[in-house]
Amino acid sequence: MTGGTDATIPARVTRVICVQLDPVVGAGAANREKCRAAVARAIADGGDVIVLPELATSGYVFTSAKEARSVAVGRDHEFFGGISSLLTGTDAVVILGFCEIDTRGRLWNSAAAVTARGVVSVYRKTHLWDRETLIFEPGTEPPPVIDTAHGSIGILICYDLEFAEMPRSLALRQADLIAVPTNWPLGEHPDDERAAEVIYAQAAARANGVFIACCDRSGVERGQQWTEGTVIIDQFGWVRATATLGGRAAREPGHGGDTAQADIFPHLARDKAISPHNDLLGDRRIDIYAKDLS
Amino acid sequence: MTGGTDATIPARVTRVICVQLDPVVGAGAANREKCRAAVARAIADGGDVIVLPELATSGYVFTSAKEARSVAVGRDHEFFGGISSLLTGTDAVVILGFCEIDTRGRLWNSAAAVTARGVVSVYRKTHLWDRETLIFEPGTEPPPVIDTAHGSIGILICYDLEFAEMPRSLALRQADLIAVPTNWPLGEHPDDERAAEVIYAQAAARANGVFIACCDRSGVERGQQWTEGTVIIDQFGWVRATATLGGRAAREPGHGGDTAQADIFPHLARDKAISPHNDLLGDRRIDIYAKDLS
Repeated sequence: MTGGTDATIPARVTRVICVQLDPVVGAGAANREKCRAAVARAIADGGDVIVLPELATSGYVFTSAKEARSVAVGRDHEFFGGISSLLTGTDAVVILGFCEIDTRGRLWNSAAAVTARGVVSVYRKTHLWDRETLIFEPGTEPPPVIDTAHGSIGILICYDLEFAEMPRSLALRQADLIAVPTNWPLGEHPDDERAAEVIYAQAAARANGVFIACCDRSGVERGQQWTEGTVIIDQFGWVRATATLGGRAAREPGHGGDTAQADIFPHLARDKAISPHNDLLGDRRIDIYAKDLS
Repeated sequence: MTGGTDATIPARVTRVICVQLDPVVGAGAANREKCRAAVARAIADGGDVIVLPELATSGYVFTSAKEARSVAVGRDHEFFGGISSLLTGTDAVVILGFCEIDTRGRLWNSAAAVTARGVVSVYRKTHLWDRETLIFEPGTEPPPVIDTAHGSIGILICYDLEFAEMPRSLALRQADLIAVPTNWPLGEHPDDERAAEVIYAQAAARANGVFIACCDRSGVERGQQWTEGTVIIDQFGWVRATATLGGRAAREPGHGGDTAQADIFPHLARDKAISPHNDLLGDRRIDIYAKDLS
């Protein structure tokens, strides 16, 4: 397997915008409006791939499943139609996390991909973090890879990215860019180090030769501080953009969130050659580790 | 699967010493003596787990297989007996890279684990980098995990570590510490970033809750500069020790190489719980990615 650009993909720049907004837990309608406003601004700013945080419509620190249920929406909720209508006449893609309730009343920590055509994909988080396990069902389907005008976009949610198997599986399914709605609780790390979650993202991007856009959230929620670690990483693992640390959104309610923005060429992810004799994906030795990993 | 310390392992400190020495390509006897002297010094410094670079006995930038063959040694070479005799009366373990020739005359980029009992394991690199593919056979066996007085030690060599499948497979086989002889060619990276190889190691350590000790080399060889990125990383992915960047060994021939040293408790790697509801290895969703990865 040798890399190489695919002539069917135009060498057209893609503007990635992550909006590190600050939902308020339990305030469903207000959060949906905040998401809508954030997408409208990102479209006005020329965004092609727009990423919002995990559970952007609901907030995160639920006290109970009942509370989560009170702000959960189905994938056919008019909110998504509203987002889609903002994209009319564009080939933009929005990936945003939402608290999903299905027709059987089950709750999922989900991310929707929305275009001018409507909701084109919903992914349900498969690796649940901590108390999420008390509220949400774990997803049962692999993460999607969506064909778009901006290359193939894979979707993960937060803790999913800490399992190298996940970005690897997306790269093997030809994802060029992985969009990752996240809510990263602030953790300790040495002063001279990036947040651990960013290190995971850097390693995953480089190991697979893919772009990764992680959209974190800002604000403080029921005492939980967030990393505000929003980051756009190139296919070599280097940080191309971050949101301003310090949470302008937290200081200026209504601002709608700090953004990270980068112009990238997603199709560059199709070249997996890293030396005359090496290919990031082709060099895998499945024979060596299949037994241990299955 | 829930983590927890294993009462059979004494909570005893383990001193890890990596010696970033500077072999000279083709100078077999001199390199072997350099390795011997480095191990003797590390033992005098209280080293329990001592790691030397990849191909420490031979140098790296071979012009041909013939040149590699001229400095290759078998695993029964007296050199290893000499290393082993330095360890008499200790429970120390030495992991060092060497240019191996087997009884059929084939060349391998290998690493030996040596104790006072002799060579206890040889691993042959499975992911070959660039022109190594023209000289060495690719290893056909999974990397070993060795039971030692200092916990279970897994072995990888250089480029192997860039495949997250490798440290994952070692962690699943209960490695506490992964020793990685390396020769990292100096690559470009942003000023405010660590070398990419270190980022891989940090992500692998944290994702698997294992310690990782990478021993790079120093000096310049046939125009090839090395990263001199020797690093010891804890089970949370944070850098505990590095060798002095700048290559004291290169400036003071005969010094034998800069060292990185850290005192660790390898058995702490047996606790994989990272929240009341999460376990680093138990949280894997094999059902989700097995199909893509196999």
